[in-house]
Amino acid sequence: MVQSTTYSEPGAANPDTASGSIVPTGSVGIVSPRTIAFHEPLPLASGQVLPSYELAVETYGTLNADCSNAVLVCHALNASHHVAGISASNPKDIGWWDNMVGPGKAVDTERFFVIGVNNIGSCFGSTGPASINPATGRPWGAGFPILTVRDWVDAQVRLADHFGIRKFAAVMGGSLGGMQALGWAVSCPDRVGHCVVVASTPRLTAQNIAFNEVARRAIISDPDFHGGDYYAYDTVPKRGLSVARMLAHITYLSDDDMDERFGRNQRAPAENGEYHYGYDVEFEVESYLRYQGEKFSTYFDANTYLLITRALDYFDPARHYGGDLAQALSVAQAEFLVVSFGTDWRFPPARSREIVSALLKSKRAVTYAEIDAPHGHDAFLLDDARYHAVVQGYYDQIAAKLGLPERQSTTGVLA
Amino acid sequence: MVQSTTYSEPGAANPDTASGSIVPTGSVGIVSPRTIAFHEPLPLASGQVLPSYELAVETYGTLNADCSNAVLVCHALNASHHVAGISASNPKDIGWWDNMVGPGKAVDTERFFVIGVNNIGSCFGSTGPASINPATGRPWGAGFPILTVRDWVDAQVRLADHFGIRKFAAVMGGSLGGMQALGWAVSCPDRVGHCVVVASTPRLTAQNIAFNEVARRAIISDPDFHGGDYYAYDTVPKRGLSVARMLAHITYLSDDDMDERFGRNQRAPAENGEYHYGYDVEFEVESYLRYQGEKFSTYFDANTYLLITRALDYFDPARHYGGDLAQALSVAQAEFLVVSFGTDWRFPPARSREIVSALLKSKRAVTYAEIDAPHGHDAFLLDDARYHAVVQGYYDQIAAKLGLPERQSTTGVLA
Repeated sequence: MVQSTTYSEPGAANPDTASGSIVPTGSVGIVSPRTIAFHEPLPLASGQVLPSYELAVETYGTLNADCSNAVLVCHALNASHHVAGISASNPKDIGWWDNMVGPGKAVDTERFFVIGVNNIGSCFGSTGPASINPATGRPWGAGFPILTVRDWVDAQVRLADHFGIRKFAAVMGGSLGGMQALGWAVSCPDRVGHCVVVASTPRLTAQNIAFNEVARRAIISDPDFHGGDYYAYDTVPKRGLSVARMLAHITYLSDDDMDERFGRNQRAPAENGEYHYGYDVEFEVESYLRYQGEKFSTYFDANTYLLITRALDYFDPARHYGGDLAQALSVAQAEFLVVSFGTDWRFPPARSREIVSALLKSKRAVTYAEIDAPHGHDAFLLDDARYHAVVQGYYDQIAAKLGLPERQSTTGVLA
Repeated sequence: MVQSTTYSEPGAANPDTASGSIVPTGSVGIVSPRTIAFHEPLPLASGQVLPSYELAVETYGTLNADCSNAVLVCHALNASHHVAGISASNPKDIGWWDNMVGPGKAVDTERFFVIGVNNIGSCFGSTGPASINPATGRPWGAGFPILTVRDWVDAQVRLADHFGIRKFAAVMGGSLGGMQALGWAVSCPDRVGHCVVVASTPRLTAQNIAFNEVARRAIISDPDFHGGDYYAYDTVPKRGLSVARMLAHITYLSDDDMDERFGRNQRAPAENGEYHYGYDVEFEVESYLRYQGEKFSTYFDANTYLLITRALDYFDPARHYGGDLAQALSVAQAEFLVVSFGTDWRFPPARSREIVSALLKSKRAVTYAEIDAPHGHDAFLLDDARYHAVVQGYYDQIAAKLGLPERQSTTGVLA
């Protein structure tokens, strides 16, 4: 089952040796991804088979001799394997969970070996719709198979085997990443010691699916989409992607947080503070959203957006248990940490409590924290002392149970 | 100031004489709009001037001798002057507030003379972007002036004069219509006896503006928009309009209501209830939204969508009072009824309570009802006995104060 590959030089382990950048205390430093190829066909939930695939990966810290200190970090819709540190190719590109993962941080890379992996179907180095289909010599495009959370787990199992990791100390993620962590716990019960599910849900609601569908319609109806084969036309459905991203962004922030940050502030008022009476940017919030949309449309693959939103729609572990989530989760052997945020209206605390109730009902060990943070769904990515203290405390317990060395750094949130 | 016009035959007053349709008890019957032209230029908030305009109007009931029983109903984003009854031109076209307005209903047309008016800038008969610009002989298109709630009130003042109505018994509306009612109360204090503000807000939040902006970007970035002059290209930005409508529709429904109506129900499951693994309709909620979007894009004018969402953004009566809503409303002489709905997350009860607090602070008479309805923002359009009882009770008080005849019908919600 184990596949091998050549890969690029792993990132520098010691931040102090990094030249040309100021490395913050507690950073894993300058990092580079590696790409690992798997040549055995991957059967998918849809019945299709992916003939082979590559995974883009970053690792931080050192895998110990018995491979017991590994943590797998799963990403959300638009993130990647670049979880922590500073990208060697772009010093402005800080990992998306850099405040969480690093020496002395909540997930302490001086004790744990942390793996960030880009999902197949994504667009940051792993095999996806923009990759070359070996059967045609052209980009997969619309022909790339639809994927599910289960497929991602199956693809990542081979990554664990590649590293010789029989059982992860923890599998962890926020939002879609939390669903993947849950997916790991039920698909591979004996390979997950702890499962950390942040700002997530056991299944999307009708409203969640509806927002995804509007985003997909914006992309698919963009004439530059060309039925998903826009690569062949040397174009990108930027208008649709931009609208999709603007819309999604609203759901990541709380109503109050948006009012706090933007309110009704005008971007550049006319004389006497007047309106401009037109459709150009009038309010700050419009400027912000347009910027987010336009930026996103320059780097994110439209087919990936469709694919990942569909995987979100499809995720529903209770589906084959008559909707009984407790029964679905009862196969899990892991212990659980579930975290939610009070103002998250995308995946509100009530959704996390459904997971917690189901775990309790199936007699799993579960710790639950509901964080009173103002920032909506995005809170799971932000620096919040209480939130990070909860996660750090949980990882300290994991380390103690595994007999890992004592915490060394004094920069951690609980230190 | 009074302008006159020829107009089509008003609707049949007696439902029993209507042929070809089954008229429900309490209906105003078959109705036809009239169009009233105003030739005096209308100065606008933007500084522009509308050289002349027409208003499409429906009326129900009879204006009494002293013109004291008139009620003006203001519409929301995508509605019109067709408030009640059955359209003579289309027997399936029932007025949007037919459950509220009619003989024996909450707003009883046996006692009140009710006027429904289409806003200028809209697309159902009043002058708007699709109308011919007299200066060019071609559709206004992108050249149509941006409007505000204040401009709508100013345009409607001439309508009141046309009918010889010095003071409305009530001005009433839901959502944007509620803002117009508020606008009437502060712009023309001595012409509004009662102001009924349903499911509305004193100003849009950043999140409200953000949703409007995403909808506008979807329309404006549609290649068929042609900078707003799509009429000249014999096309319509249907893709953008459809996305805009799908998005707006999500904000009209509550999360719980969507789950109740659609949940995760599959539209036409594959064998053994499986997913289809594709981007065609998979879930019921997708089918519903696509249908709503496509239907909307066949009849609603894209420039009107932009214009009305912008007027929503701009509405902020406290703006010229340093944000002090109480001061802004203190000029009003009307008495107020404010109604909100518990699950409305577009304009939640907290927004209505701001209006109520400001009115109390400025010592206005205000009745407030917060209805525990499951249907989100759309609840203001739906049949709800408690809601209609509140409105009917309020109109009974108005009638008593004005010395209008006793309620005759026994079909009303309180009868």
